[in-house]
Amino acid sequence: MMTARRLDAADAAVIIAGAREKATEIGVPMCIAITDEGGNLVAFERMDGGKVTSITIAIDKSFTASGAKKATHEYGEASQPGAPAYGIASAIGGRLMVVAGGLPVAVDGEVVGGIGISSGTPGQDLEVAKAGVAAFLDSL
Amino acid sequence: MMTARRLDAADAAVIIAGAREKATEIGVPMCIAITDEGGNLVAFERMDGGKVTSITIAIDKSFTASGAKKATHEYGEASQPGAPAYGIASAIGGRLMVVAGGLPVAVDGEVVGGIGISSGTPGQDLEVAKAGVAAFLDSL
Amino acid sequence: MMTARRLDAADAAVIIAGAREKATEIGVPMCIAITDEGGNLVAFERMDGGKVTSITIAIDKSFTASGAKKATHEYGEASQPGAPAYGIASAIGGRLMVVAGGLPVAVDGEVVGGIGISSGTPGQDLEVAKAGVAAFLDSL
Amino acid sequence: MMTARRLDAADAAVIIAGAREKATEIGVPMCIAITDEGGNLVAFERMDGGKVTSITIAIDKSFTASGAKKATHEYGEASQPGAPAYGIASAIGGRLMVVAGGLPVAVDGEVVGGIGISSGTPGQDLEVAKAGVAAFLDSL
Repeated sequence: MMTARRLDAADAAVIIAGAREKATEIGVPMCIAITDEGGNLVAFERMDGGKVTSITIAIDKSFTASGAKKATHEYGEASQPGAPAYGIASAIGGRLMVVAGGLPVAVDGEVVGGIGISSGTPGQDLEVAKAGVAAFLDSL
Repeated sequence: MMTARRLDAADAAVIIAGAREKATEIGVPMCIAITDEGGNLVAFERMDGGKVTSITIAIDKSFTASGAKKATHEYGEASQPGAPAYGIASAIGGRLMVVAGGLPVAVDGEVVGGIGISSGTPGQDLEVAKAGVAAFLDSL
Repeated sequence: MMTARRLDAADAAVIIAGAREKATEIGVPMCIAITDEGGNLVAFERMDGGKVTSITIAIDKSFTASGAKKATHEYGEASQPGAPAYGIASAIGGRLMVVAGGLPVAVDGEVVGGIGISSGTPGQDLEVAKAGVAAFLDSL
Repeated sequence: MMTARRLDAADAAVIIAGAREKATEIGVPMCIAITDEGGNLVAFERMDGGKVTSITIAIDKSFTASGAKKATHEYGEASQPGAPAYGIASAIGGRLMVVAGGLPVAVDGEVVGGIGISSGTPGQDLEVAKAGVAAFLDSL
């Protein structure tokens, strides 16, 4: 059998707080989703003004990053026309996200979960996702 | 135009805290979902040990309660074999939940959102949902 | 080849007006959906206060009634435990509605479309659906 | 709690009338969908000759524009190969529309709903959507 380390609810709260702080700093209310290493949702927050369409997008970015152990923007590069993963964006009923804003959360080289951010530009989403991960790593 | 009041992120945190406290008291880790009056997710928490299958169930209970302005267990009674709403449980792609644990959140007779709880028995889910709503109303 | 008569946009407006009038009379704001004989949506109105969850339910009741050329409550009877159509409610991804409120619209014994109503009790939904059909037949 | 203004059924009728008039003027029967600020459908009309495939497309354009507070053609530009939002078109089960014809409806800088048009070229769809919004703003 295997043993998996995974984000718990307290970890998720730390990550969300870190992301929320950055989102507030840059003035973009975000949807923030945290998944565990199985890709399953642990926690979610739609900040006041976060977009309705971003609820599912944030969850799916986090699902993609934790489940595939890869940042969503890496899929963005790999799925351009002519690139090897072209067409992957519509996989899993469209849940496979290739837009920036989804990051795996790794500890000691092991992916323990993910974060997904949506409502800003992809660049802003990624910046806020990074802040969430950093807040978690700082707390260890 | 119409004007609608709805739960914000701070309200959702209060409701989740109230539900979490009751869930801890009865010893059943729960999935807790909060939606606004349009049925859209505001916040979610899966307590450590909450069921993976309950993620969607909690979200859909909250969606049903806020969108239909009705407790999910009322649909349970109304959809028994031979009763008028028999068969409604599979509506909206199965999102229409008829099992206890989803409650609308109303202020001054106006539905402003909903809560959905899943991981325990339906009775436990309902008890925890009630505690979440009570915590919110006490905070007003 | 076949020729099909079907409800057009002007017909749909007449049916919706008739349904709206009855809904207003009984004091229940409704979701009102009209489909053509192919089951495809022609028109929809969510009256102020109509339920968010009833949007899809009204559309699917109308889809069922026009596509199956049968009132949805007839499916309700036929799908009770032990009855021949037991289990049909979850067919077509849950779109097959067996709760009252969906009626085919027939002219000269030929189904030309359907109406689906949701937001009240099944009895109220059916009453409003009948009023919509009656308004159309009176207009011919 | 938050307070949100949203399109009501009467507003939707004004917007649809404005869109229908423009569609008639340019000779392209359209599917016209109106959503509120939560992305939920308020009203829909398929003009005689509007495309069956455009029913869902019009609804999803309106959902996208109101939920994301952004015109769908802006997503079209941002999601070209190599651009930051490449791949977003298949998000939310394919509901995220990046083709022109979806516009948010804003009053005093606040998004109160959206309109989605489909059946013509993207340029025609956008033209008709603009006419719907203009008719509403003129009515205030």
